[in-house]
Amino acid sequence: MGRWQPDSRGRLQEAALALFAERGFDQTTAAEIAAQAGLTERTFFRHFADKREVLFGGSEVLKDRIVAGVAGAPKSNPPLDAVARGLDAAAGMLGEFRRDLASQRHTVIAANPELRERELAKVGDYAAAVATVLRRRGVGEPQATIAAEAGMTVLRVALERWAGGHDDRGLAVVMNDAMTQLRMVATDS
Amino acid sequence: MGRWQPDSRGRLQEAALALFAERGFDQTTAAEIAAQAGLTERTFFRHFADKREVLFGGSEVLKDRIVAGVAGAPKSNPPLDAVARGLDAAAGMLGEFRRDLASQRHTVIAANPELRERELAKVGDYAAAVATVLRRRGVGEPQATIAAEAGMTVLRVALERWAGGHDDRGLAVVMNDAMTQLRMVATDS
Repeated sequence: MGRWQPDSRGRLQEAALALFAERGFDQTTAAEIAAQAGLTERTFFRHFADKREVLFGGSEVLKDRIVAGVAGAPKSNPPLDAVARGLDAAAGMLGEFRRDLASQRHTVIAANPELRERELAKVGDYAAAVATVLRRRGVGEPQATIAAEAGMTVLRVALERWAGGHDDRGLAVVMNDAMTQLRMVATDS
Repeated sequence: MGRWQPDSRGRLQEAALALFAERGFDQTTAAEIAAQAGLTERTFFRHFADKREVLFGGSEVLKDRIVAGVAGAPKSNPPLDAVARGLDAAAGMLGEFRRDLASQRHTVIAANPELRERELAKVGDYAAAVATVLRRRGVGEPQATIAAEAGMTVLRVALERWAGGHDDRGLAVVMNDAMTQLRMVATDS
């Protein structure tokens, strides 16, 4: 351990991810997370509504960033190019996280069907929000939903590759590459 | 009511969907479904493990059909063309259902976050199975996962349009059209 100590929230997240990874999500309590972080259970609940929020607490902010990225794309951008702006924004935010923590989070979620369903539902929320922005930009249906969902597929695949340790490059590069792969897969016929 | 009576399983499905749509999924019991169908609760549990299975009971068969469709595509087919064969198989199976029942099912699931998560997870299972078949056909990663996930996006969008009453054509046509839209969205840049 270096001399630098992260803030309480960061220490709780680190402790939670370590315990989830070691014992499993269901076998870990908020009290144990707090103890591991050298903090009280009360402090835990000042930062998180429950232990699941340690994993999903950032998802509303992430959704807002993605939506802002899409909404801010030049008017002339075709739908999937606008979605790519949203993915750039997501990569900018997520890429700042420590990759070892992102990787632990990924492993914990992959191991638990309920958490996997929750994660899919969150990404489904992002897709619905992105489709709404695209419709506001004048994109019709089903194009808006298809572009939004395809973009969120790119997000999930890139995150999986990056956090899963299958690709050592930065998240923005991995994301960009996944988008290129989608375009190639879709044109190859 | 005509003179024809569907089998017990079909009567239970019809009764369940009507009650789910009328009262909500959580407010409906297996006993009520059985009573509505003029059958005993014991008969209900001979056909379904629980009331959720009325909505999701066919999903393993559907997954097998999709996988068989992809696996049976000509070796020369690029990944997304092979996936399209799987979607044809899905449309063939699902298109045989009565559209009014598919529409009720769609409405019931859309109204319930837990059921929505379950439905997304099922489609995620299909995507994982399709990606496995594609890898067996020699497709690398991330192309296999991207093609599989993009294909399942097409499935979901088409089902939503068809069962949601946004498109009056047959499911196979709606599915085919959604695939074309995906290809257009992906090339437009």
